[in-house]
Amino acid sequence: MRQLAHRLDRLGTETAFSVAQAAAAWKAQGNRVYPFHLGDINIPTAPHIVEAMNRAIADGYTGYCPGPGIPQLREALAEDIGSRRGIGLTPDNIVVMPGGKPVITKFLQAVMNPGQEVLYPNPGFPIYESQIEYLGGTSVPYRYLPTESGFAIDLDQVRASITPHTVAIIYNDLQNPISAESTAAEREAVAQLAQEHNLWVLSDEAYFETRYEGVSNSIASLPGMAERTVILYTFSKKFAMTGSRLGCAVAPPEIAKVLSTLNTNDESCTTHYVQWAGIEALRGPQEPVQQMLDVLRERRDAACELVNATPGMHVAVPHSTFYLFPDVTAAMERMGCTEVGDFATAALQQTGVSFCTREHFGRRQPGEERQYIRLAYSGIDVDDIRVGLDRLRQWIESA
Amino acid sequence: MRQLAHRLDRLGTETAFSVAQAAAAWKAQGNRVYPFHLGDINIPTAPHIVEAMNRAIADGYTGYCPGPGIPQLREALAEDIGSRRGIGLTPDNIVVMPGGKPVITKFLQAVMNPGQEVLYPNPGFPIYESQIEYLGGTSVPYRYLPTESGFAIDLDQVRASITPHTVAIIYNDLQNPISAESTAAEREAVAQLAQEHNLWVLSDEAYFETRYEGVSNSIASLPGMAERTVILYTFSKKFAMTGSRLGCAVAPPEIAKVLSTLNTNDESCTTHYVQWAGIEALRGPQEPVQQMLDVLRERRDAACELVNATPGMHVAVPHSTFYLFPDVTAAMERMGCTEVGDFATAALQQTGVSFCTREHFGRRQPGEERQYIRLAYSGIDVDDIRVGLDRLRQWIESA
Repeated sequence: MRQLAHRLDRLGTETAFSVAQAAAAWKAQGNRVYPFHLGDINIPTAPHIVEAMNRAIADGYTGYCPGPGIPQLREALAEDIGSRRGIGLTPDNIVVMPGGKPVITKFLQAVMNPGQEVLYPNPGFPIYESQIEYLGGTSVPYRYLPTESGFAIDLDQVRASITPHTVAIIYNDLQNPISAESTAAEREAVAQLAQEHNLWVLSDEAYFETRYEGVSNSIASLPGMAERTVILYTFSKKFAMTGSRLGCAVAPPEIAKVLSTLNTNDESCTTHYVQWAGIEALRGPQEPVQQMLDVLRERRDAACELVNATPGMHVAVPHSTFYLFPDVTAAMERMGCTEVGDFATAALQQTGVSFCTREHFGRRQPGEERQYIRLAYSGIDVDDIRVGLDRLRQWIESA
Repeated sequence: MRQLAHRLDRLGTETAFSVAQAAAAWKAQGNRVYPFHLGDINIPTAPHIVEAMNRAIADGYTGYCPGPGIPQLREALAEDIGSRRGIGLTPDNIVVMPGGKPVITKFLQAVMNPGQEVLYPNPGFPIYESQIEYLGGTSVPYRYLPTESGFAIDLDQVRASITPHTVAIIYNDLQNPISAESTAAEREAVAQLAQEHNLWVLSDEAYFETRYEGVSNSIASLPGMAERTVILYTFSKKFAMTGSRLGCAVAPPEIAKVLSTLNTNDESCTTHYVQWAGIEALRGPQEPVQQMLDVLRERRDAACELVNATPGMHVAVPHSTFYLFPDVTAAMERMGCTEVGDFATAALQQTGVSFCTREHFGRRQPGEERQYIRLAYSGIDVDDIRVGLDRLRQWIESA
C-alpha cells in the first residue's frame, strides 16, 4: 500500500491519554484510583441547559444551521463575551465551533504560512505545539519562571525569540497546566510586543470564568489589541459542558469570515440543538455556575493544603483554573526518582493517585531543572482529594 | 495588519449558500418560495433516538469521551456497516466524527502530499475540490455521461487522467448532486483502476441507505479494496440527523489511527451524548427509517413526473438519494437563457421555485454543453412539490 502523507510526521497529540489508560488498567486490577489526571468535570450539565436543548429538538431544530452558528447564539455570545471584557462585539465577530479546541487549528490555518514562527507557552496545552508544526510552522516555546504567587512569563525569552519570521503568539492567561495568571503589567508587555512586531494573538481564554477570587482580564481589551486578537471561548469549563462540544472564536471580522469558511469545509456546522442550549447557558440562571465554582474552590483549598503539607512538594494557591502545578523536585529526590514519569508511575502504584506531569505539556526546554506534576481537581470529589493526597503525603513522608 | 495565510487563496466553499440567501430574501419580500435548494431534511429525528440521547445525559455522559468515539458506538457501527456491505469490520476500523464531512478533509490529510493529484467527481460535492486544493493537491475532475437510466462515469476520462502523481480517487456512488449509480461493471472498473495504480479510495456513502428500489453495494466489498478504501458514513440522511453532526470514517486500522489523532487535535471528540443516540439509531426500531423512505419516494415520484411533463426538461428516475439533476438545456433555450444561474433567478422570481444548478457542484469542465439544475426533495412536502413544479412547468410552457 502507498505511504501515508508526510505531514503526519509532524502531527503531535495529547499524550495525557496514556495516563488515563494506565489509571484504568491499575483500577481494573482491583486497585483504588484517585483520578487527578483528568481535565474533565465530574459535575453534570445544569438541568435548565439540558431542558433548553430538548425544547430546541421539539421545536424542530434538528437540521443543518449556518456554518458560523445560529444568529441568536452569536448575538448572545457577542453580548456576554464583550460585556465581560469591556470590548464591543457584534455577531460578525463570533464563529461558533464544536468546542474551543477547533479555534487553535483554524486560527493557525488562517494566519500562519509554512516556515513562519509562532510563539507558544511551554509547558502549555499540547495541541499548540502539535498544530503549529503540523501546519508547517516552527513552534517557538516560551517559558514561565516561578514566583512567590505562581509563575510569570519569561518576557526576556519572548522578546529574544521574536524574529522577522514570527507571525503570532499564543497567550493562555489563566493557564493550563500551570495556572499562571498575568499581572496587568505582564499582559501589557505581551500586548506591546505583539503590536511592536505586528503579531497576531491567539488568546486562549478557556478558563476566563473559572476563577475563585479576583477578576479576569482579556488581552483583547487592551488598546490596539482587538483587531489582532482571536479569543478562544468555550462552554466546556464554565458550564460543565465538555462533552457537548460547544465553543467559539471571537475574531476581527475578516478572520471570522475565514474561520466560517473553514467550518463549512470541515464540519458544516456545530450541532444545532446544542447551540440553543448554549443560549440558555449564557442567558438563563447563573446559580449553577456559582455553585460549581464553590465546589471547585473547596477542592482547590483541600488539595493545596495537602500538597503543601507534603515533604518536597510546593504550590502557590492559584486563583483560577482547576489545576495545580506543584514543584515536586525535592519529593522526587527523596523518593530516588530522576524521571518525573517514573515518579508518577510509582505514585499510582503505591498510593493510587494518578496525575499528569510536565512531560505531557510540550517538549521540555533546555535548562529546565525543576520537576513538576499537574493535579487536576475537576474530576474528583473533595473527600477523595483528601484521602488520595494524604496517601501521597504519607508515602513520601515514609521514604 | 499582517496578511492572512496564503493557503486561504486555495480554499473553496459551498456556494449553494447564496441560493438559500436569495430564496430567503425573495420570501422576505412577501413571495411564496418552493425550496428545492436544500440538502436538508424537513422530517424530525425519530423520538426514540432523542430519548436515548436524554437517557445518556441523565446517566452522566456529558463529559469528554475518547477521540475515536465511544467503544459501544464503534462496535455498533462496525457491525451495522460491515453486515450491510458484506465486509468484516471491527471497532478498530471505525473513527467517529462530527458528521460525514470531516472524513473528507481528514482522509486527504492522511493520504495526500502537496503536489499530488486526486481524482474527484464533477459535478460533485463541492468540498472535494475545495479540500484537495486547500491541502495543496491538484484536483483532477472526472465527468459523467448521460445514459438512458441516468449517468455513467466517463471511465475513459478517469483512465486518461491517472498520472504517476495520482494518489487517490474520490468515488461517490449514489451521487450528490446527480443521483448517478454505478452498475456492478462500473464499480469493478473503478476498483480495478485503483488497484492497478495503487490508489487510495474515498468512498462517499452518505446516501447508501437512502434508496427506494434495489440494493446498494460498496466498492469496499470488492476483492482487494477494503485495505485501500476509506468509507464516509453519516447518520445525517438515513436517520434525519443532519443537525446532530454524527458520522464516521471506516478505514484500514493504520489510517483509522491517524484519523483518530486528527480528531484529538481538531475537536477532542464528537458530542458525547449524541453518540449514544447513534447507537439507538442503529440498533433501535427501524420503522422510522422505512417511513421516511416512503415519504421521500412519494416526493421523488411526484417531482419526476412533473419535471418530465415540463417542456425542455428531462430526468431519469433515480433509485436513490433525494436529488434530481434534470437536463434543462432545451427549457433554457425556450426561455432565452444562456446562463443557468440566470435561469434559476428567473425561475425563483417568476414561480417561487428555488434550486441549485450545476455551477454549485465544482468548476465546469471543458466541453460541457448541456445545462443542469439540482432539485432536492428532502426539504419540501409533496403537496408543495406538486404546486411548485407545476408553476415551473406553466411558466416554461407559456413562453
